[in-house]
Amino acid sequence: MSVDSSVSKEVKPESVLLCPLGTTAAPEQKLLCIFGTGDLGRSLGQRLLQCGYRVVYGSRRPNSCGPLPRGTKAMNHEAAAMSAALVFVCVHRENYDFLEALAPQLNGKVLVDVSNNLKKNLYPESNAEYLQRLIPGAHVVKAFNTLSAWSLQNGPSDANRQVYLCGNSVQAKQAVEEMATKLGFAALDRGSLSAAGELEDFPLQLFPEWRLPLRVAVGLTAFFFFYLLMRDVVYTYVEQGKDISFRIMVSLANKVFPIVSLIMLALCYLPGVIAAFLQLYRGTKYRRFPNWLDRWMLCRKQLGLIALGFAFLHVLYTLIIPIRYYVRFRITANTISQIRENRTSVFDTTKAWRADSYYSMGILGFGLYVLLGISSLPSVSNALSWREFSFIQSKLGYLTVFFCTFHTYLYGWDRFLHSYSYKWFTPPGYLLSLVVPSVLIVLKLLLLLPCVDRSLTRIRQGWERTDPEDSSVKALLT
Amino acid sequence: MSVDSSVSKEVKPESVLLCPLGTTAAPEQKLLCIFGTGDLGRSLGQRLLQCGYRVVYGSRRPNSCGPLPRGTKAMNHEAAAMSAALVFVCVHRENYDFLEALAPQLNGKVLVDVSNNLKKNLYPESNAEYLQRLIPGAHVVKAFNTLSAWSLQNGPSDANRQVYLCGNSVQAKQAVEEMATKLGFAALDRGSLSAAGELEDFPLQLFPEWRLPLRVAVGLTAFFFFYLLMRDVVYTYVEQGKDISFRIMVSLANKVFPIVSLIMLALCYLPGVIAAFLQLYRGTKYRRFPNWLDRWMLCRKQLGLIALGFAFLHVLYTLIIPIRYYVRFRITANTISQIRENRTSVFDTTKAWRADSYYSMGILGFGLYVLLGISSLPSVSNALSWREFSFIQSKLGYLTVFFCTFHTYLYGWDRFLHSYSYKWFTPPGYLLSLVVPSVLIVLKLLLLLPCVDRSLTRIRQGWERTDPEDSSVKALLT
Amino acid sequence: MSVDSSVSKEVKPESVLLCPLGTTAAPEQKLLCIFGTGDLGRSLGQRLLQCGYRVVYGSRRPNSCGPLPRGTKAMNHEAAAMSAALVFVCVHRENYDFLEALAPQLNGKVLVDVSNNLKKNLYPESNAEYLQRLIPGAHVVKAFNTLSAWSLQNGPSDANRQVYLCGNSVQAKQAVEEMATKLGFAALDRGSLSAAGELEDFPLQLFPEWRLPLRVAVGLTAFFFFYLLMRDVVYTYVEQGKDISFRIMVSLANKVFPIVSLIMLALCYLPGVIAAFLQLYRGTKYRRFPNWLDRWMLCRKQLGLIALGFAFLHVLYTLIIPIRYYVRFRITANTISQIRENRTSVFDTTKAWRADSYYSMGILGFGLYVLLGISSLPSVSNALSWREFSFIQSKLGYLTVFFCTFHTYLYGWDRFLHSYSYKWFTPPGYLLSLVVPSVLIVLKLLLLLPCVDRSLTRIRQGWERTDPEDSSVKALLT
Repeated sequence: MSVDSSVSKEVKPESVLLCPLGTTAAPEQKLLCIFGTGDLGRSLGQRLLQCGYRVVYGSRRPNSCGPLPRGTKAMNHEAAAMSAALVFVCVHRENYDFLEALAPQLNGKVLVDVSNNLKKNLYPESNAEYLQRLIPGAHVVKAFNTLSAWSLQNGPSDANRQVYLCGNSVQAKQAVEEMATKLGFAALDRGSLSAAGELEDFPLQLFPEWRLPLRVAVGLTAFFFFYLLMRDVVYTYVEQGKDISFRIMVSLANKVFPIVSLIMLALCYLPGVIAAFLQLYRGTKYRRFPNWLDRWMLCRKQLGLIALGFAFLHVLYTLIIPIRYYVRFRITANTISQIRENRTSVFDTTKAWRADSYYSMGILGFGLYVLLGISSLPSVSNALSWREFSFIQSKLGYLTVFFCTFHTYLYGWDRFLHSYSYKWFTPPGYLLSLVVPSVLIVLKLLLLLPCVDRSLTRIRQGWERTDPEDSSVKALLT
Repeated sequence: MSVDSSVSKEVKPESVLLCPLGTTAAPEQKLLCIFGTGDLGRSLGQRLLQCGYRVVYGSRRPNSCGPLPRGTKAMNHEAAAMSAALVFVCVHRENYDFLEALAPQLNGKVLVDVSNNLKKNLYPESNAEYLQRLIPGAHVVKAFNTLSAWSLQNGPSDANRQVYLCGNSVQAKQAVEEMATKLGFAALDRGSLSAAGELEDFPLQLFPEWRLPLRVAVGLTAFFFFYLLMRDVVYTYVEQGKDISFRIMVSLANKVFPIVSLIMLALCYLPGVIAAFLQLYRGTKYRRFPNWLDRWMLCRKQLGLIALGFAFLHVLYTLIIPIRYYVRFRITANTISQIRENRTSVFDTTKAWRADSYYSMGILGFGLYVLLGISSLPSVSNALSWREFSFIQSKLGYLTVFFCTFHTYLYGWDRFLHSYSYKWFTPPGYLLSLVVPSVLIVLKLLLLLPCVDRSLTRIRQGWERTDPEDSSVKALLT
Repeated sequence: MSVDSSVSKEVKPESVLLCPLGTTAAPEQKLLCIFGTGDLGRSLGQRLLQCGYRVVYGSRRPNSCGPLPRGTKAMNHEAAAMSAALVFVCVHRENYDFLEALAPQLNGKVLVDVSNNLKKNLYPESNAEYLQRLIPGAHVVKAFNTLSAWSLQNGPSDANRQVYLCGNSVQAKQAVEEMATKLGFAALDRGSLSAAGELEDFPLQLFPEWRLPLRVAVGLTAFFFFYLLMRDVVYTYVEQGKDISFRIMVSLANKVFPIVSLIMLALCYLPGVIAAFLQLYRGTKYRRFPNWLDRWMLCRKQLGLIALGFAFLHVLYTLIIPIRYYVRFRITANTISQIRENRTSVFDTTKAWRADSYYSMGILGFGLYVLLGISSLPSVSNALSWREFSFIQSKLGYLTVFFCTFHTYLYGWDRFLHSYSYKWFTPPGYLLSLVVPSVLIVLKLLLLLPCVDRSLTRIRQGWERTDPEDSSVKALLT
């Protein structure tokens, strides 16, 4: 059987049937082969059977390989390989070597590599590329490895709809795509077999791009928690002997969350400003940024979303203030003492303006913040042109930074002038939180100066400042 | 005209033009045929005209078939079928029988079945398969039936972007896909014609997977509403003669919503735990779960989202408490009575700790809850690897259950010890709501015991406990 | 070199290698050509190099064209065009004329037009169509122009995942699709080259469908802001000499936002009702709506989402009421005055019912509102059948309108009966906001009358009232 005919006859029978006969009778059930009778092989076999395929297993010990799905049979590898045009390799990479001996039988077949490794970078070469090297005559396609075994057996579910595949043979990939579609999945071609390493890393990843931002968030939260614990609770206990530790649960949390949120929001926009200054300084946009800046820029979205989460908690913690026992107690006590001491407090219009502006800024900032969050949902950002996306993420983003920073300034008001704010000579938390956003806003305003803006625009359009040693620029263009 | 040439000449003219001539002049306007001059046929014809196709109608009475879009003409069916390589069948299934006589003219043509039925399961066979059986020589493609007539006429809109299609002929499907793309839709191949039944059911469905969870939600809401109405409003009226019926609108609602939310959240995680125990008990993962468990597991997402909706309402109902007339009145009355009776209430630190912890747990639980909700948006869950998805949905999910349950325990505190809580010998609502989540947490903790966890992991990796009668396991593998 | 062989050899080598040799050795690096050494050409070249392509530049002055990415070289246009089967045209449209002379060398090549214009409608013909006209023998594909230059250089990012492409040659498009996939993008075929104009307009657009709704929102907000400023702040200052300008920040904002939100929500459903009456009046659904109604209907989603944004702000502004300095001051002052004057206010059950119903309606309305917003996320609405989508958007939509309108009526209660509400003879703001939704609800109820509903349903199913002059209907069917 020649290579060509075997592929077209078995894998795309419609095209063969269609043309000579002009008829489209329901296609005969295709026979597929699975190497390996472990859990994965069995799960996959069951699903294939349910979707109307016939399945044959290839096994070392075809007579004692444990229970197989009803309707399938086990053969030795040679016979199984001969019988089908498409072979699933459900075997651990460690055991691939036996396949080399099957090269003649597997010549021209589509080999679907579904394997995963236990850790990243365990081998210099991806499993699929190794398999292709072992059997150069086969058409290896990497596929299905990103699905859970549960989904392989039961069909697509939430995070298991998409089958990523890659391979060097377009026709082999088409055959696998068609099968994946029949199994209910959406196939996504990821290019040639050199992408296999990436696909094999995919199921092992656990939010890699969220790690750095989460670490920053945890670090900042821990720092400010202990800083404010000391300033608020410990200070009061030491200096006045009063136990106000109950304030940890809400009052302290509602100081830590907004502080971390504001700092992280500013950290999300700071790298863009630093990059602009770097480009201005270097006079070109063609030189790579330092690695730390690259990494920082790549996690801006995550920084922003975590900051939004903290802002959300801050909003909820603020809104429950009036139903807290402590607050109600204090307000009642205050009213009672006013009456008993026959005091009359006077309404302070400035204070009302300040307080209301403070809340208003916070609400508008949070509203914009939520808008930024919504626009970063994959389906929303995909629907936007990049001009629209960058309008939202940069124009509205800086407006958000401005509102939130102004909100914090209004909160502080003149408190920083009074010495009682500096308990144990430490500045209050809100002052610390204002450092990064204030720096960011000043730098951004500098970039908006017409002369600076003009230079930057030219550089971003590809213009380069000609240095004396012109060749140094050329050398970096790689 | 041979089958093969007609398809390739009419349906994919580019490929024909490209190779021999090496030129890509704008392709000549293709002629398509529509059988049926009803609303659907006219809407479709208008859209096809707008997108640059030529259209001819096939009709029984070509001379008296009512107004047709300008630029089209009506012929009898034979002539119309002969003139085009692609024919839309915009006729009710009841009238398909006339097509049988047209088999010679339709041989080798692409027949697009756009029909829908008025109810599910009206016929044993899908319309498209019936059509294929009537005219075995044609290439039937089921398509466009999931779109509204409005979208067929006016192009894609929100829920009408995707054209699902299926058919046995790959080339016929490609032709239809190309046309759908030209009409502005995104074509999605759903496999062979056997999927037609599913596509015909699709437009008839109205949230099938939401029915059971919604029924549970309505049932629980009704039960707890009347339960609490009796305990709170009726009891007070009967025993004390006081009419506090105004509390129905907010106070009662704010008891019912969190109770139902907590129970449904627990119901969302309970089937997973039950399944684990079932697997442990059976010693294998290869036996099917009972039907009730399968159905329950399939609607977990919907249970969770409805629970989130109720939690959202609970949050809003809680946050408006301090602006309620009743609450303000009571607080003022309380302050006044304290002064008149010259009482002084003492600040209770334990109470402050308890109240603040209660709010804090609630806020953190709700925050995680919202995170779970966001991660179940289709575009977000598609972007996650299944390891990430299961991390969020199970690890963070159980954390949410824990926070919310703890929040409710803190709410109850020692109230369940006092006899006044048991009005008419009924337990308070919050106690009832704690049953399911408490059971869930205990069962989950059992599963986390190292010895149990190890067994379960082995079973989920495909290991089976060998029973004396080994064959019974094999028999179930279907 | 013949056209056919050059395309297949260079662009789709897998298919060529696969069949005769039966081997899938890693494909040799393909050579691509870029015309133009400007910023775009260099960015693109760098990315192509990174993805394993070889790149050659075509330039007028190959020896003095500035720094190029390492590993590439510049030739004159003729030599560069001869060397590759796929040529990127990274040249401004103004300079396309030189290409005409290269027609012999470009015959049969795939020409990728990546150009954009600075403004819409600058030329009568799209750049790509102009290019195709200049070189009829080439296969022009419009692609990559919707990406930012940053993404072209660095790979896909948030709003830059999708490469839209169009062209008359299916095979040329396939070649470009494959390359785009290798570069990490998702390719989306938009049909023949006549779609190029649309693709060239895409990067220039900045929320075109949001403009009208945003203008309406800004207009309404400005009007009601000044209206209420006059009624509340200026009136009090003029008539009572009291400065309550601090109320602008929260109290006034919290009147303007809900008013605009309610009106815009009603405006979102009004065109549907008007369209229904128009169809009833005309007795057919086949006549086009007037342009103003068409435009209005097309921005309903945006109207609704802006209204939701305002409702969200209204909720936040309402929930911070009890923590405002002004509110706390007033409540305390009120309590104190009650005590000093020895007044006792009596609890008013009707008032409690009204206030609680008012809040409850608002919360339920907002909850439904958020649900509508979530269902209009692209990924959610894509997952719905249109029956489900229209159920949510119309049934639940009208329920939302009803809840929100009822919420406003409860807010007003009997206030409109008292003369003090008509400061300077102007009606209070909430009364004005009720006009549009009340009209909408009345019209909708009329449409729900059985006799009207039946007529409308018949018309929407394609039935037409036969007018005396039947031909007039036919003439409009275009």
